[in-house]
Amino acid sequence: MNRRKFLASAAVGGAAATTLAAPAYAQGNRTLTLVTTWGRGLAGVHDNAQRAADLIGELSDGQLTVDLKAAGELVGAFEVFDAVTAGQADMYHGADYYFVGQHPAFAFYTSVPFGLTAQEQLNWYYIDGGMELHHELGEIFGLKSFIAGNTGAQAGGWFAKEITGPEDFQGLKFRMPGLGGQALGRMGASVQNLPGAEVYQALASGAIDGTEWIGPWADEKAGFQEITKNYYTAGFHEPGASLSLATNLDVWNELPPHHQAIIKTAALECHQWNLAQFLANNGAALQRLRSGGVKILEFPDSVWDAFGAASQEVLNENMGDELFKRTYDSAIASMRSSSSWLKRSSTAYVAQRDRVIG
Amino acid sequence: MNRRKFLASAAVGGAAATTLAAPAYAQGNRTLTLVTTWGRGLAGVHDNAQRAADLIGELSDGQLTVDLKAAGELVGAFEVFDAVTAGQADMYHGADYYFVGQHPAFAFYTSVPFGLTAQEQLNWYYIDGGMELHHELGEIFGLKSFIAGNTGAQAGGWFAKEITGPEDFQGLKFRMPGLGGQALGRMGASVQNLPGAEVYQALASGAIDGTEWIGPWADEKAGFQEITKNYYTAGFHEPGASLSLATNLDVWNELPPHHQAIIKTAALECHQWNLAQFLANNGAALQRLRSGGVKILEFPDSVWDAFGAASQEVLNENMGDELFKRTYDSAIASMRSSSSWLKRSSTAYVAQRDRVIG
Repeated sequence: MNRRKFLASAAVGGAAATTLAAPAYAQGNRTLTLVTTWGRGLAGVHDNAQRAADLIGELSDGQLTVDLKAAGELVGAFEVFDAVTAGQADMYHGADYYFVGQHPAFAFYTSVPFGLTAQEQLNWYYIDGGMELHHELGEIFGLKSFIAGNTGAQAGGWFAKEITGPEDFQGLKFRMPGLGGQALGRMGASVQNLPGAEVYQALASGAIDGTEWIGPWADEKAGFQEITKNYYTAGFHEPGASLSLATNLDVWNELPPHHQAIIKTAALECHQWNLAQFLANNGAALQRLRSGGVKILEFPDSVWDAFGAASQEVLNENMGDELFKRTYDSAIASMRSSSSWLKRSSTAYVAQRDRVIG
Repeated sequence: MNRRKFLASAAVGGAAATTLAAPAYAQGNRTLTLVTTWGRGLAGVHDNAQRAADLIGELSDGQLTVDLKAAGELVGAFEVFDAVTAGQADMYHGADYYFVGQHPAFAFYTSVPFGLTAQEQLNWYYIDGGMELHHELGEIFGLKSFIAGNTGAQAGGWFAKEITGPEDFQGLKFRMPGLGGQALGRMGASVQNLPGAEVYQALASGAIDGTEWIGPWADEKAGFQEITKNYYTAGFHEPGASLSLATNLDVWNELPPHHQAIIKTAALECHQWNLAQFLANNGAALQRLRSGGVKILEFPDSVWDAFGAASQEVLNENMGDELFKRTYDSAIASMRSSSSWLKRSSTAYVAQRDRVIG
């Protein structure tokens, strides 16, 4: 699976061949091509990729220009990984779990079923070794990746019919990427992995019976409420879905340290902004959806139990891969430690706040 | 209260008089003096100020050097505000609620009692107008401020004796800054506002009967468990305490746009890192405190009720100030909207995760 040597030679004739003069002021300006898994205009994801691109330009005083190509403009949504590892583009912005086919451990840099919330994910990423593991995985494919966005805990999604028990997933044609989708497959669903820009049409045409996308605000913008009226809030599949900004490793290695620091810091700050964007907008959007006739629902415990069993099966199936297992052990140990304090502090506080001031 | 004009003229002979040549490569390097409210070495706060300083240097390729002076090295902990507004130093890193005497609205940029959790605070700050209100407040005093750290929900603190009801606060000598401290005063406590570096000695000498500081990890490093053994976890006073990086506004206005962007982005990314640092470390620290003989306690509901009533009194008392009231209304409206979705998504998810996988 080590494509590093191939890439090192393949990149010579590509974008990576640009050279930079040594003193900062003598450097030529450089344009980096950024491909994304997002259709132009997809709320919260396309605009986050654009914000990262703009911020890199701003922080570098225009020495770096990031030229964003939405899904389909240079390559298709799911082709961005190959485009960047092969040097056809310099960077991608996307959800790394789209690439579990390349390596299952990519799931951890979006979200794994029954895994970490957004805050637990951050604690792991910054402090408990997650970022180093992201880089170790990226190195195999010739990428330098950073988390660069987060949707928060994703909604369970949109269903043509209400879900009353795990048997309702039998034969259900449902859109869900990553290991969560594989878990639904174990429950008998016919799972499809469609890029965001194609989901509305698939749902409208009846090609799928339901879909998860992100949460109330982004889902409302996507317009799913025009097609179906059953909306499940908490989901098992993506409890804190990160997005990533990945740079071709040869391109990265040519950049001077301050430009590397700019890309890294822009990505990480966009993570925080993006999470705030989703979470600030979801409450009002959920109210609007409800007012518009959408039924706001929660999965019954029997369904959560089935989600749990299917998720553990899928996770266990990948434990034969040493890096996957090491990443899982690291993430889950961090989650358990983080979670023990979060329950005693902010969760306990919010419960008292609700009790005292309503 | 508008000190802006005073500052504009006073700054002419001070640090703000430095001029910069126009083209980026011709600019001289510039050193910015950063004073802090933190004693050198205080875990999670001094090191966060240092990280912000280093990151600004790194992102600017050394064009900006931030020279950090810990509390007492140039000015005392609580003198940093006046030092920066007067141009004696260029920046401060601290907790803005130390400066509620200058304006009560500074409390919102650390934390207010029964206010926003760290995530709710971020949602408000980035998306629902909090950052703009921070700048409006700073403008009055000649500051450009950004949040630049967060401790998460702070612990209730250390007490010589267990708390069984609100009457136990009568006559209690307790360290707590900000509006939370004022609320404890309403409950009969004798409240002191000591900088972090002075708390251990005050507790050891019996000058105070108890203190809040931050949370298990930072409190353990401060050594309070050597003196007292009753530790309350969730507190009412700082449900998500931000730290701030403030720059003298004249200094800020002289900086080229990319250096402004570097300071802003470094501050905001340090916010995210710092929150992860506290939250990743608190779980293990709490276990160590417990193993070392510390009693881990929660305030009874009667005490929470009294905290609630006293907090509302203190908040109401400040509503005569137009900016305070506008800030309060903005923050609380955002909190209620954010919170409605967080409960249905990540809180509901974690409850199911605990139920299903334990």
